[in-house]
Amino acid sequence: MQFLLEQFGVSVAAITGALAARGKQVDLFGVIVLALVTAFGGGTIRDLLLDAPVFWIQHPGYLFNAFATAVMTFYLVRYRELPGTVLLVADAFALALFTMVGTRKGLSLGTPGSVAVVMGVITGVAGGIARDLLIGEIPLVFRREIYLYATAAFVGASVFVMLDHWGVNSQANIIVSTTTTLLLRLAGIRWRIALPLFRPRAADPAAGGRN
Amino acid sequence: MQFLLEQFGVSVAAITGALAARGKQVDLFGVIVLALVTAFGGGTIRDLLLDAPVFWIQHPGYLFNAFATAVMTFYLVRYRELPGTVLLVADAFALALFTMVGTRKGLSLGTPGSVAVVMGVITGVAGGIARDLLIGEIPLVFRREIYLYATAAFVGASVFVMLDHWGVNSQANIIVSTTTTLLLRLAGIRWRIALPLFRPRAADPAAGGRN
Amino acid sequence: MQFLLEQFGVSVAAITGALAARGKQVDLFGVIVLALVTAFGGGTIRDLLLDAPVFWIQHPGYLFNAFATAVMTFYLVRYRELPGTVLLVADAFALALFTMVGTRKGLSLGTPGSVAVVMGVITGVAGGIARDLLIGEIPLVFRREIYLYATAAFVGASVFVMLDHWGVNSQANIIVSTTTTLLLRLAGIRWRIALPLFRPRAADPAAGGRN
Repeated sequence: MQFLLEQFGVSVAAITGALAARGKQVDLFGVIVLALVTAFGGGTIRDLLLDAPVFWIQHPGYLFNAFATAVMTFYLVRYRELPGTVLLVADAFALALFTMVGTRKGLSLGTPGSVAVVMGVITGVAGGIARDLLIGEIPLVFRREIYLYATAAFVGASVFVMLDHWGVNSQANIIVSTTTTLLLRLAGIRWRIALPLFRPRAADPAAGGRN
Repeated sequence: MQFLLEQFGVSVAAITGALAARGKQVDLFGVIVLALVTAFGGGTIRDLLLDAPVFWIQHPGYLFNAFATAVMTFYLVRYRELPGTVLLVADAFALALFTMVGTRKGLSLGTPGSVAVVMGVITGVAGGIARDLLIGEIPLVFRREIYLYATAAFVGASVFVMLDHWGVNSQANIIVSTTTTLLLRLAGIRWRIALPLFRPRAADPAAGGRN
Repeated sequence: MQFLLEQFGVSVAAITGALAARGKQVDLFGVIVLALVTAFGGGTIRDLLLDAPVFWIQHPGYLFNAFATAVMTFYLVRYRELPGTVLLVADAFALALFTMVGTRKGLSLGTPGSVAVVMGVITGVAGGIARDLLIGEIPLVFRREIYLYATAAFVGASVFVMLDHWGVNSQANIIVSTTTTLLLRLAGIRWRIALPLFRPRAADPAAGGRN
């Protein structure tokens, strides 16, 4: 069951990775790379940080899935438009799923709760950040029109850690924490809920940055 | 022999890394960083993914080579132009060599063939991607005028895995797979062969990306 | 004592990371991510390269520090401007400290001196590079107006390796090498000392890059 859900998450992430090539001059291979980076980026960084075997090296089935999804998306979009709403919901689901998987893996390897939350957020959002960097865009996480994206992952991961700490059954925890992230993200999109923006008192460029 | 070839590949990659500073305001140190990132980026990511010791940490000779090459390039270009054709061919050779080395290392550490191919492609192209990101350019792999670059690496790596699977002698395999990547890349440049571009039916920005 | 110094370095780096959001449309979560990436980026890459446990996973205290610093900076800048000079000096101190810590860790894990120097420079500058990439700016290291930044780290790290090789007492070495980096950086800023820029003889775009 979890295997199926993860494969679904990988497929959705691969599709959003491939679609990021819209409006760019990217060839088939570039689309495949974008799909792989989006689907595996977060989990790969998590596994490296935790010194765990990288998941798609251990289970190449994920690799075939993302590869095939990218090629199919590449050709499919020539004939059909993908409905935006379906994509948004599917993407929110992938975010929620990846976050839960990452948090769970962190805890199962014995990291403290705070680190497990960071692992969950990284698993959820790092692939999308890497994808945006590769195509020369400022990552979504650092743009204005982002409605509870990483924040939803952070809350969902925290819920998982807390319920786990309180001894809640693992299956129940998976459902509750994934749903938390998913609903928060969807509510953010629906009602345009966003965190406060960074507003320094004076835009003094001389003091900015690390120079 | 393979050691010499690899040092040659590192030198060539360091030169292309240094030359990426053309038209930018980069100082000597920046040029050295670009050279190191281009020469070691792909192999470093590969070794981290495979949980193998990072090659240039084990053998600092590579470090000295890339460092010296970068400094020499930095001063040499003030007096002489480097012929573009020589560079293109040398770079294609470095791509072919790095790809073969990466694929071989993947297989020798017991990864499945599909993962070994990915390792080969990463070793071949990731250094150049990192270099392009650092200087604020969209990586070559995601630009239009790319003629069988990562694709040539993919085919060369696949040839290596297949021949290895069929029990072909290692030396012969090294030569055949490296030549495959090299010739494909050169043919791509010569006859402007490219993969098909990503062409969605309608450029509907509302549906694009992971937001 | 070293623990306190490192926490101070993490705080300073987190502040410069948060302040990098000036003039961008970044929300609270984005500011936290920028702070964490700036404070932990270099040390994380170093630990991954050395196959050592990642320092902030082992000691989540760093995580809380950077997180709290980012949130405080986020709200503080609404009411007070931070004086640019204080920031510059604090940042130079963080650079010097991180470089020394990275070099020392490299040597203590048995790497050759040349590799330890690279570890020191990476620990000192990689966090800032990652931060600049995330907000879509060309990293400082590759811009003109950089006065002995990575270069100061390089010299400080080399001093540490040399003194260590000559058997100098560890405490004395920490002070001397950190001071070397710090003074070099401050002198660079004060008198606008910079390394020579990359100046190819002819700006021949056809020959440039890895294409």
